[in-house]
Amino acid sequence: MPKISSKGKAMPESPIRKLVPYAEKATELGREIFYLNIGQPDVKTPDVALQAVKNNTLDIIAYSHSAGNPSLREKLATYYAKHDIHVAKKDILITTGGSEALIFTMGSITDPGDEIIVPEPFYANYYSFSTQSTVTVVPVISKIEDDFALPPIADFEKLITKKTKAILICNPGNPTGYLYSKEEIKQLAALALKYDLFLISDEVYREFVYDDTEHYSILQEADLKDHAIVVDSVSKRYSMCGARIGCMVSKNKKVIATAMKFAQARLSPPTYAQIASEAALNVPDSYYEAVVAEYKSRRDVLVNGLQQIPNIKVSVPRGAFYCIVELPIDDSEDFARWMLESFADQNQTIMVAPAAGFYSSLNAGRNQIRIAYVLKKEDLKRATEILGLALKEYLAR
Amino acid sequence: MPKISSKGKAMPESPIRKLVPYAEKATELGREIFYLNIGQPDVKTPDVALQAVKNNTLDIIAYSHSAGNPSLREKLATYYAKHDIHVAKKDILITTGGSEALIFTMGSITDPGDEIIVPEPFYANYYSFSTQSTVTVVPVISKIEDDFALPPIADFEKLITKKTKAILICNPGNPTGYLYSKEEIKQLAALALKYDLFLISDEVYREFVYDDTEHYSILQEADLKDHAIVVDSVSKRYSMCGARIGCMVSKNKKVIATAMKFAQARLSPPTYAQIASEAALNVPDSYYEAVVAEYKSRRDVLVNGLQQIPNIKVSVPRGAFYCIVELPIDDSEDFARWMLESFADQNQTIMVAPAAGFYSSLNAGRNQIRIAYVLKKEDLKRATEILGLALKEYLAR
Repeated sequence: MPKISSKGKAMPESPIRKLVPYAEKATELGREIFYLNIGQPDVKTPDVALQAVKNNTLDIIAYSHSAGNPSLREKLATYYAKHDIHVAKKDILITTGGSEALIFTMGSITDPGDEIIVPEPFYANYYSFSTQSTVTVVPVISKIEDDFALPPIADFEKLITKKTKAILICNPGNPTGYLYSKEEIKQLAALALKYDLFLISDEVYREFVYDDTEHYSILQEADLKDHAIVVDSVSKRYSMCGARIGCMVSKNKKVIATAMKFAQARLSPPTYAQIASEAALNVPDSYYEAVVAEYKSRRDVLVNGLQQIPNIKVSVPRGAFYCIVELPIDDSEDFARWMLESFADQNQTIMVAPAAGFYSSLNAGRNQIRIAYVLKKEDLKRATEILGLALKEYLAR
Repeated sequence: MPKISSKGKAMPESPIRKLVPYAEKATELGREIFYLNIGQPDVKTPDVALQAVKNNTLDIIAYSHSAGNPSLREKLATYYAKHDIHVAKKDILITTGGSEALIFTMGSITDPGDEIIVPEPFYANYYSFSTQSTVTVVPVISKIEDDFALPPIADFEKLITKKTKAILICNPGNPTGYLYSKEEIKQLAALALKYDLFLISDEVYREFVYDDTEHYSILQEADLKDHAIVVDSVSKRYSMCGARIGCMVSKNKKVIATAMKFAQARLSPPTYAQIASEAALNVPDSYYEAVVAEYKSRRDVLVNGLQQIPNIKVSVPRGAFYCIVELPIDDSEDFARWMLESFADQNQTIMVAPAAGFYSSLNAGRNQIRIAYVLKKEDLKRATEILGLALKEYLAR
């Protein structure tokens, strides 16, 4: 039998999906599960987006422009301007989800063996896309004690080699919920300029910031013109993860022209989803305000509930909709599996993501879990109760 | 300024898009262009697919299963069974277009520096996806004199090295229109088994076969169970190129499990497009019959028209909707540009794809063009007239 590639073997399994068979079994046994493991929002997709697709008048679903529909790119530029990010249509390349924006970015700026420095813990698929591009992720450790704030710049500098091509951040962070301050972004910008590195910022959770904090984009740093690449997506913003529309934004003309060659090879992003995405950009500011208020109150319910549980550490998220929790256990994957296989309270249990999958350092994060607070408040309250009860029983075994 | 990757620099520009600026200029000047350059069918997408999207009742556009909706995979298995291809849901992975199926396939079976042997001329994006995967395309030459039939197996054998991982064919072929016979497929199967190579077959034009010939899939070769990987797409079959739904089909469990890791990393294929694709599979056989009859008559009109032009060679296509034509000129890119810039008959001209982009051998195909016969018959007839007139004038300059 011919062999699978080394690259294919090295591709990690999703830390979230690993436990799915156990969840399926629990469901078969009639158990109710609260899913805290994935970032699939339960918020309704804006009606204006749903209706635009229902009312479309296409009779041939033809290829669109490889860079995405010009009207969608125009509208995105207007959206960014509202966020004090001044980019033009030509600086935007529509991709099939933020995922493809990351793949195009890595393809455009890295060759096999190159390195990208990423604050750890990080979105697990950064590791997958790096493996796919045979690029090495070099983790720089951020700590739960600091709510996963930016590690000292000196820590980054120690890791920079001739092979370093970029620094990649997620702001606000999945899985940390940390929102980088303007000051931190300026430090990173100075670092990127000093070593002539790309600074890639995954800003798909831009709108999800709480506590009167403000999101500061790397694209607001004028000096970073040739160094900044932003990855974005409509998935979370408009609760349309299944649309698969994202984009890559950069004022570096060579970067966009190179990514465009990758875009042409795959022909075009999906047509229906572009219709939905363009319409979604018509939502009034009140839409974002309502969604953010809802997530903020969910965050409060979750953190409140977690703080009742003894001996755990909670990193209070200021953005996105994830929260890392450190538990007084050795192996959160075992604990998460145990909750699905062997635990129930009133026939209910929870599914969480073991955090080790968000770290590339050996054995890091093994006592942590990631919770996505994408459920309604009553469910989140009950889920934290279950977590407390489960932990008590697990420790007492 | 930080540097673009070598890989990014090496990515080819689309041979089809290169001339777009000239076409845009000609259009601005009020010239009418017949577009023979791209395989975007003008056939209406089946109404059942369009209506399924209009009538969808989703209120959250959520991630689908990373392998694609189970119902879509089930239905595809039934579709294949009708073609005497016996595969199960688990052998099918839904991808974002045939493009992504090729990317996942290359990622699953090749590492940087590996080689894939491809009969030349080939679909230009095979070269792009190989470059993206830092894999080397090794061309094996097929000839217009043989209508681009399978090159002798000895020619393949000469090119096999330790780095050869697969043979990749397109059947029926883009850009050649050649349909491999059952005998040729059996020869390739024996070769793949002898050297333990994967045999990848791009069968997106499966339905488009003419002259009472029959398509024979590599998946019909029982011995090839672990070696066969089929790339497929709904794009051409149902005239829905913009949907971006394809699939990868293999009975090799390791291949599918590995590709699934790539699929999980990018989360899911587009939701709306999966709805359209599943509905499209409900079209009756009469749909395919009507479409094939239409393309066959277009093929006949085109070939007839071309055969009136002196001193050109036409490879008569038996499948797909492309035709390679050899012209008595040195540089078909110059000729194609000239037709857009400097030629018109009754204010009309044509746009064709220079064939060099479908070859990786140096200077090969420079006197050839590819014509996509995706226009209605009157337009094709007129287009061949224009080609004849343009060629005469070009040669007389």
